[in-house]
Amino acid sequence: MKPFFQVKTPREILQLIRSLPRLPLEKVPLEEGLGRVLGEDVLSPEDLPHFPRAAMDGFAVRARDTFGASEAVPALLTLKGEILMGQNPPEELSPGACFKISTGGMLPSGADAVVMLEHTQTLSDGTVEIFKPVSPLDHVIERGEDVQKGRRVLSAGQKLRPQDLGLLAALGIKEITVSRRPKTAILSTGDEIVGPEENPPPGFVRDVNSVTLKSLALQGGALPFFLGRTKDDFPALKSLCQQGLKEAEVILVSGGSSVGTRDLTLEVIRSFPEAKVLAHGIAVSPGKPTILARIGDKVLWGLPGHVVSAMIVFSLFVRPCLDHLQGMDVDRPFPKVKAFLSRNVASAPGREEYVRVFLQPAEKGWEAVPLLGKSGLISTMVRADGLIRIDQHCEGLEKGEEVEVWLFPEGPSPGV
Amino acid sequence: MKPFFQVKTPREILQLIRSLPRLPLEKVPLEEGLGRVLGEDVLSPEDLPHFPRAAMDGFAVRARDTFGASEAVPALLTLKGEILMGQNPPEELSPGACFKISTGGMLPSGADAVVMLEHTQTLSDGTVEIFKPVSPLDHVIERGEDVQKGRRVLSAGQKLRPQDLGLLAALGIKEITVSRRPKTAILSTGDEIVGPEENPPPGFVRDVNSVTLKSLALQGGALPFFLGRTKDDFPALKSLCQQGLKEAEVILVSGGSSVGTRDLTLEVIRSFPEAKVLAHGIAVSPGKPTILARIGDKVLWGLPGHVVSAMIVFSLFVRPCLDHLQGMDVDRPFPKVKAFLSRNVASAPGREEYVRVFLQPAEKGWEAVPLLGKSGLISTMVRADGLIRIDQHCEGLEKGEEVEVWLFPEGPSPGV
Repeated sequence: MKPFFQVKTPREILQLIRSLPRLPLEKVPLEEGLGRVLGEDVLSPEDLPHFPRAAMDGFAVRARDTFGASEAVPALLTLKGEILMGQNPPEELSPGACFKISTGGMLPSGADAVVMLEHTQTLSDGTVEIFKPVSPLDHVIERGEDVQKGRRVLSAGQKLRPQDLGLLAALGIKEITVSRRPKTAILSTGDEIVGPEENPPPGFVRDVNSVTLKSLALQGGALPFFLGRTKDDFPALKSLCQQGLKEAEVILVSGGSSVGTRDLTLEVIRSFPEAKVLAHGIAVSPGKPTILARIGDKVLWGLPGHVVSAMIVFSLFVRPCLDHLQGMDVDRPFPKVKAFLSRNVASAPGREEYVRVFLQPAEKGWEAVPLLGKSGLISTMVRADGLIRIDQHCEGLEKGEEVEVWLFPEGPSPGV
Repeated sequence: MKPFFQVKTPREILQLIRSLPRLPLEKVPLEEGLGRVLGEDVLSPEDLPHFPRAAMDGFAVRARDTFGASEAVPALLTLKGEILMGQNPPEELSPGACFKISTGGMLPSGADAVVMLEHTQTLSDGTVEIFKPVSPLDHVIERGEDVQKGRRVLSAGQKLRPQDLGLLAALGIKEITVSRRPKTAILSTGDEIVGPEENPPPGFVRDVNSVTLKSLALQGGALPFFLGRTKDDFPALKSLCQQGLKEAEVILVSGGSSVGTRDLTLEVIRSFPEAKVLAHGIAVSPGKPTILARIGDKVLWGLPGHVVSAMIVFSLFVRPCLDHLQGMDVDRPFPKVKAFLSRNVASAPGREEYVRVFLQPAEKGWEAVPLLGKSGLISTMVRADGLIRIDQHCEGLEKGEEVEVWLFPEGPSPGV
């Protein structure tokens, strides 16, 4: 194997990713916003709620009219009527009076508190006995208590969740500015691969990376499409890459595993005059033979042909790249689970190593069981729940040691 | 407020959910399988790989021909040629001979091991010097080593991830049997609500639950649609529910917060002769006023009108219900993060309580900061990263205590 000339550490790769230009913004209707990344801060155009509301069922009162009230000596207030939901209170609350009100109802002006229904008794003559004093603002949601007009409610770079869309809806925001989704071209190379729909003759195997990488790219918010499959052949690969550069912002090339054609992707990249190879090799295992290049304002990743390596490199670097292009931070925390290692795991120092594990319940939490199969075996990824990381300065982990397992994301729901 | 007659514990609700009939199965092309739930076990139709492959670059050999080889006394083998990728080896390997081979190449019959390139030297006369002995199967992926024909590779009830689709592609499986996605009708009731596109007059607020519940249902793999918005009015709500029962498998009704109309959803449910109210009230806070009913083979959830309660009830119960209908287990583990509580939190015993928290980095990991706002404030859900659970027998948690934070899912990626 030819040497790698620009081997970078994972930290350097993430730094390179941060230097890539972000994608332009676009406006979309609020209903299409789930999972999109906000392109700009959102300031509230109004107070929420825009009127004071009851937070309990009961009576809207002036708090001072209830001071000193008790079971023995209730305060007596005159019932002026009921404020129905969705109704503007008919009149100001005068001293010594009260209105019946439901949770969410609008407080009349003059009222500053709500007495809960269970601390009252309504007499037949329209007098309400109050058995417990309230302080001003008790059981009231003030105007602007949820959100004040002008306040920043969401920030650029946030991926929109259901509650974020709910808040935007509450504020009457119908359209949002989000990052464009990165169009991502996926292509597989290899003299030995055939399409998944074919019956491979002896010596051939079906292409696994195209469906796997496309699914991972979808999880990362990209708009992936399958560009094609090619033998390890310079003109064919160059032509596909040219097409990819026209149609996509990100190009994922996986494969090229024949001896002598290992550097084919690199040669093709270098044949584009505006290409800049940012990394040729990453100090990580599995996944060392990875290429990161910029061609104009497009990004090209050359990924290992072995499916396990390709998936791990995707998760560690391509996914953060897609996140960055969409305006997200590349080093936010991701869900991990603490577990205890079921056996010793050795590791060669000088590179970060990622070990597939599955989780099984144990006496004191979870046990992480390493899956040490060869990186060509996709069944090991299917049996795995996630990965553990072994630091480059570490020669291994010991049985019983506490580790953090980075969970593989569940398939996102379809059709979102 | 009228009493709840069938208050159930969360555990009882999950048990009721398990008793609901599952949705029928359907076949979809593999490419549409991401995030879908397998309806039946998948047995491998073939051995993977279907021929023995080199796991390293080097020479395909008979292991016994290398026994005793060393730097000082190398084994000498006759080079018979190179096995190219995607090529059926030209002949059987005879004793004393070897073939050059690349990672992934097909081993010729007779060969049982690969000697790594770096432990060899090829002389000009076509002799290969082997400096290190190999054992049988060294650096070889055997036929069927990834998956053996007939073995169960995936199980009914699994949500398909990228690697699962990859494995199915590797096996040549083009179509899969998955659960139908639950069609889910969403409707909001309330005398005080207007559409998110309207400017609410005093006393009115915009409907937040419809967009929030629709997004949550999408994350749960459902096919949600907005059925409509109605005043708290029996004929109007009944008519919308009738439409929902025709078009959907699951109906989510949220709202009905006016005093006196609290039981409107219940009355409407009871007016369907085939209706069975499974629960009226759940011993959980927030979220007590929740209704679960079966109408024929359809499921109806009556959710609280307050957005925080509605979201929490969705996450705790409706999501597991959608999972169950699609054939998944309702009590599989979900991603949690360990954190230390930033302050004391009190809780009333007798019901499970869920507290919104946000996470901030602390000296020894994460700190969980409770957000104790009223359940009508959606901003508290926007600021929160997840929930912590306080057991029904517990009167509160103490500052510094270790808690598990159940993380809200990130918005799934759009367009999947």
